[in-house]
Amino acid sequence: MSQYWSAVVHGLTPYVPGEQPKLANLVKLNTNEHPYGPSPRAIDAIRAEASDALRLYPDPTAERLKNAIAVRHGITPRQVFVGNGSDEVLAHAFMALLKHDRPLRFPDISYSFYPVYCGLYGITFETVALDENLAIRPDDYLPNGDAAGGIIFPNPNAPTGRLLPLADIERIVAGNQQCVVVVDEAYVDFGGESAIALTARYPNLLVVQTFSKSRSLAGLRVGFAVGHPDLIEALDRVKDSFNSYPLDRLAIVGAVAAIEDEEYFERTCNAVIRTREQLIADLASLGFEVLPSAANFVFARHPARDAGELAAELRKQAIIVRHFRQPRIEQFLRITVGTDAQCGALIGALRKILG
Amino acid sequence: MSQYWSAVVHGLTPYVPGEQPKLANLVKLNTNEHPYGPSPRAIDAIRAEASDALRLYPDPTAERLKNAIAVRHGITPRQVFVGNGSDEVLAHAFMALLKHDRPLRFPDISYSFYPVYCGLYGITFETVALDENLAIRPDDYLPNGDAAGGIIFPNPNAPTGRLLPLADIERIVAGNQQCVVVVDEAYVDFGGESAIALTARYPNLLVVQTFSKSRSLAGLRVGFAVGHPDLIEALDRVKDSFNSYPLDRLAIVGAVAAIEDEEYFERTCNAVIRTREQLIADLASLGFEVLPSAANFVFARHPARDAGELAAELRKQAIIVRHFRQPRIEQFLRITVGTDAQCGALIGALRKILG
Repeated sequence: MSQYWSAVVHGLTPYVPGEQPKLANLVKLNTNEHPYGPSPRAIDAIRAEASDALRLYPDPTAERLKNAIAVRHGITPRQVFVGNGSDEVLAHAFMALLKHDRPLRFPDISYSFYPVYCGLYGITFETVALDENLAIRPDDYLPNGDAAGGIIFPNPNAPTGRLLPLADIERIVAGNQQCVVVVDEAYVDFGGESAIALTARYPNLLVVQTFSKSRSLAGLRVGFAVGHPDLIEALDRVKDSFNSYPLDRLAIVGAVAAIEDEEYFERTCNAVIRTREQLIADLASLGFEVLPSAANFVFARHPARDAGELAAELRKQAIIVRHFRQPRIEQFLRITVGTDAQCGALIGALRKILG
Repeated sequence: MSQYWSAVVHGLTPYVPGEQPKLANLVKLNTNEHPYGPSPRAIDAIRAEASDALRLYPDPTAERLKNAIAVRHGITPRQVFVGNGSDEVLAHAFMALLKHDRPLRFPDISYSFYPVYCGLYGITFETVALDENLAIRPDDYLPNGDAAGGIIFPNPNAPTGRLLPLADIERIVAGNQQCVVVVDEAYVDFGGESAIALTARYPNLLVVQTFSKSRSLAGLRVGFAVGHPDLIEALDRVKDSFNSYPLDRLAIVGAVAAIEDEEYFERTCNAVIRTREQLIADLASLGFEVLPSAANFVFARHPARDAGELAAELRKQAIIVRHFRQPRIEQFLRITVGTDAQCGALIGALRKILG
């Protein structure tokens, strides 16, 4: 606390990201990183750009990257916004498109950064409870006399991993044309169907994706949004009032090369999906209840063992998973799908712990 | 304009960065980039980090970089904040430390992003006129019955290049202990004395620097602030409510290597300073009035020729300089100090244009 702080700083409750431990030889299954590295073409492109060219500013509009994303998704560059990770893209979306007099709505169990953005920008919000199976009920997001000022949810949801079918997404978007609906698709490439196809028909839909998960580039910080050019213009106006160059030269060339390497992308995503299905079966055989997952993580609880204690026991064996001390989910562990070897080590450790 | 935009978006007047033309073989003297590349150690460090490690998130607090900056400046890491270029650092400072009931003050001729941040965050501001020589008058920033809510100015100022001596900075900081004073030192390494030394005595002083100019890393997006830990905590709270990882893995290792290569830094900065002095002499010999510069650019006008026309004539010869269509300075050109060869080309072209 300080007399020099602005009023908003006093009231903030910042987001706490998952731990990035500096120890080596950990089985790190706590922050949903991809177990395989990025496309070798991305690494080559970055190394080539690591040169005297770094003395020059990057393209402030990152046109090459917008073009590559547009080609990949069959849209135009004017429908694309890019930023420093999807967290920055989401932050600008909260300020530009989700701050209205009426409250923003999002699930009670969801990405815990959403209420933090609301605190930063003074956005009023209401949470909507997931059902008893921790699933989103689409009907709960249809106006019932009290239209929302905005709606946001991840699909698949985090940290549950549960997917909403595209038809349900469309019902929510079509039923809320008074406001922007943001679908946060950080994990969609591991088993979901993107709502990007719907953006052509719904000018109130913004779809956000990231290079941090399915493109194996969490360390590079690239995210993007797709929507009607009017929505993109709002994001551009905020971005150009905040930081002209959020994407550095290396991030631009690396992301372009990654999105152009479709073969590598499909192969590595499919590998994660295969490992996930094995992991779910192995956890079930140990007595865990595992939610259906369309993501690169699973959300599981053991009926007989406290989740916090399990996480602590795993940690003693240098295996890190994520445990949220939060109502409704405090008995769950969120476990990133690693390599087959990492998941095998996890299952072996759990088998010992469970006796 | 769209019904989906939040109220703030409608009122924004975004910043327009200097052009980043995609043509080759330009003499590009318009955005104050360093004419020499970054330290070879920075390039090596980036290439080494361009690996499978990119699948992992970066350290959200960038401790290695804070430590390297602290060592270089004889302070502690708790006095350091890092961000995605000094533009992002400034944006967070505006929200966290410069938004108060009383108005923020800055010079009428200064970095044109300052009023843009004020628009984004709803900060009231007053501009203080430079004197008739386009210099900051320190007395104008001392409270005279009407204390400021915050003060910010670049030193050297941009786009004038004029330096305020450290004693004048201290008078302004000491005379305004009711508010935060931000000294934006983007160009200080080209001839100024940093106010970082004063931060130990003044808990209301925040000094902002960048790797984009003197460290030749505009393409990497790294900036930082130094101040009392209470001020740094305010910046951290806003940053952690906006984007956990604004610095990617490559930016962190590149910036660490750059700041550790003191010999390269001094040699290349000195080369720019020598070229600047020659450029000033050459411009004067062509009849230009050139303001004293402690930066890597000069601000000059010709008494007989319109600045806009000169800029257009230079452009025809593939030489780009910056011309601001803004009251008081519309007859000036801001010219980045390039290599000796680039500056020679500029002088040759001007000699022909001026006949």
